[in-house]
Amino acid sequence: AAAAISAAAADAEAAGLWTQIKAEARRDAEAEPALASYLYSTILSHSSLERSISFHLGNKLCSSTLLSTLLYDLFLNTFTSDPSLRNATVADLRAARVRDPACISFSHCLLNYKGFLAIQAHRISHKLWTQSRKPLALALHSRISDVFAVDIHPAAKIGKGILLDHATGVVVGETAVIGNNVSILHHVTLGGTGKACGDRHPKIGDGCLIGAGATILGNVKIGAGAKVGAGSVVLIDVPPRATAVGNPARLVGGKEKPTIHDE
Amino acid sequence: AAAAISAAAADAEAAGLWTQIKAEARRDAEAEPALASYLYSTILSHSSLERSISFHLGNKLCSSTLLSTLLYDLFLNTFTSDPSLRNATVADLRAARVRDPACISFSHCLLNYKGFLAIQAHRISHKLWTQSRKPLALALHSRISDVFAVDIHPAAKIGKGILLDHATGVVVGETAVIGNNVSILHHVTLGGTGKACGDRHPKIGDGCLIGAGATILGNVKIGAGAKVGAGSVVLIDVPPRATAVGNPARLVGGKEKPTIHDE
Amino acid sequence: AAAAISAAAADAEAAGLWTQIKAEARRDAEAEPALASYLYSTILSHSSLERSISFHLGNKLCSSTLLSTLLYDLFLNTFTSDPSLRNATVADLRAARVRDPACISFSHCLLNYKGFLAIQAHRISHKLWTQSRKPLALALHSRISDVFAVDIHPAAKIGKGILLDHATGVVVGETAVIGNNVSILHHVTLGGTGKACGDRHPKIGDGCLIGAGATILGNVKIGAGAKVGAGSVVLIDVPPRATAVGNPARLVGGKEKPTIHDE
Repeated sequence: AAAAISAAAADAEAAGLWTQIKAEARRDAEAEPALASYLYSTILSHSSLERSISFHLGNKLCSSTLLSTLLYDLFLNTFTSDPSLRNATVADLRAARVRDPACISFSHCLLNYKGFLAIQAHRISHKLWTQSRKPLALALHSRISDVFAVDIHPAAKIGKGILLDHATGVVVGETAVIGNNVSILHHVTLGGTGKACGDRHPKIGDGCLIGAGATILGNVKIGAGAKVGAGSVVLIDVPPRATAVGNPARLVGGKEKPTIHDE
Repeated sequence: AAAAISAAAADAEAAGLWTQIKAEARRDAEAEPALASYLYSTILSHSSLERSISFHLGNKLCSSTLLSTLLYDLFLNTFTSDPSLRNATVADLRAARVRDPACISFSHCLLNYKGFLAIQAHRISHKLWTQSRKPLALALHSRISDVFAVDIHPAAKIGKGILLDHATGVVVGETAVIGNNVSILHHVTLGGTGKACGDRHPKIGDGCLIGAGATILGNVKIGAGAKVGAGSVVLIDVPPRATAVGNPARLVGGKEKPTIHDE
Repeated sequence: AAAAISAAAADAEAAGLWTQIKAEARRDAEAEPALASYLYSTILSHSSLERSISFHLGNKLCSSTLLSTLLYDLFLNTFTSDPSLRNATVADLRAARVRDPACISFSHCLLNYKGFLAIQAHRISHKLWTQSRKPLALALHSRISDVFAVDIHPAAKIGKGILLDHATGVVVGETAVIGNNVSILHHVTLGGTGKACGDRHPKIGDGCLIGAGATILGNVKIGAGAKVGAGSVVLIDVPPRATAVGNPARLVGGKEKPTIHDE
């Protein structure tokens, strides 16, 4: 019963957000006739957030050999089969709106943020990967990397409430894990050291902030709420709520007395 | 009267450059029949530099929902409404030709340099932004980031004579300002620290050179003629004609006696 | 006679690899009907590896003004005219399969690895460059940079058995040389210092490993088997089998006693 109530609440939240997105699109279409047709086809003609995203992503990721209609059906079927995907989408939209001062509306994020779109497409490729549909997951992975310059291996596990800000150049390896409410700037690598096979990529805790161009390598643990400075090269564990900066990265305040921030 | 003379001189300069670009394209079409149709449609069939760029950019940035004809009209109307845009384009073409040893002709830059094309499209999105046509400016911003992997917020103010060399991965935030005759290499970030709202991005003076992968964060001032080394992470002001290198960046020669170069 | 035997052996190796790729594609098409049409058009309908790659690359790199049929003919003619290109392709496929733990099949690399595809397209643009077909080589260069975010100047000389892992953001300058069996991660720059003209870019020896985000600038020599750490900024020669890390990069073990690794 609790699960049913929770599911109903999530449905209501998504429906409310979708109503708001449509209102934003209607307002923008009226103010800017040049965009009316675009906004109609991407948002206003659709009956749900999932349909709108499936259409928009299908158009972005299709090619002359991988047709948009095939991708639209695939995306919508996957959203329909697993409501947690839609809930994660809602959390990502809220994350962008709250955490990015340049995000002026939900529809702006939905239509224009390549980081948001890449994450939604990744979640579908991850679902396919867990269903052992690896060739399809990898074809999708490749299209995401071509179109958005965001390269997330389909096996990587990513939470919800994620902000991939700017997003260009983000690389996330096969055995990486990213928690909830994480913000990752552009050019961030969660990679391997090249020395190990198997479980070889970073684990990022809830609420972390990873600055632009940070390179985190190996099966290291970045604790919940930790921060990694821009341009850092991190080869060590970072404790919860600590900050690591530099190349090679060191903890601010040192290993014995790292500066811990509350937030 | 002085303004009219100056405008006439700018028109004459643009016309002369356009004549040269067409001569280059004619020569290349003769030498390489495989490119004849391409060069005809992108350059030789057009009556002005603005029309050629509007056509080329419209084709590059269009999508199945944002049509090339809509973009062509938008770009050409914007160029026509503000001659300073065309003058900036001319200055950018000259900058690439003079400063980049790999730039073998003006038509090469016009057709092939994603940094040049991204800057031209940015100027149009910036113009739309200042006209309060934000949804259209942001849709264009998003297409520029998808197609060229160059992410410049429409509100960012950029001078003329700009060389974005290689350009992939450049990120420029909302309140950043870039002067005239600036050269910026690929993977450069002019970003925020994440701690501030409002005016939170770098100000780059005239004639600066920002090396590949440099990350400049916060509302800091990079003085005219300063240089920032490749891979630097800059969180401080840099005096005019000084050089900053390293992570975190320090002034070469120290804060008290920074090395000042004349050029 | 020895050359004829060697050519026959290379043909046999390519034919064997192509048979394996077709078998992989047939297996995937059966397991995943959604991909059947895609796999038929990209692999199963073709009679050779060169034809398949020419078709796939032509589709990826075409635009509304540079048609896929023109590119297909250009690529296939170039492959046919110089068998060493096909042999390099075979070596690159084997390199990805052996060195990248995430590469699960040859067809996966052929279809999905933007680094692999960018290198194949570069070899064709390099061939055109050496034939003085510079405008066509540069048009291709530009499309590779747009589509894959990989920017390799057509004049750059690159060996075989190359792995460009992830590949986004790689920049290789005009006078750079890369040996055989080199692995280069994403965001790597082989660039100039901006101070020199002429021969101004790095020379990378056989078997080197260049980590993610490394920036190597100037006409420096990275000796055979050397390693460059992620995020390093290298402005100096690195001896064979030595390791350089940091910003600015220093040799591990120092200049007098650099750590030399055998492999």
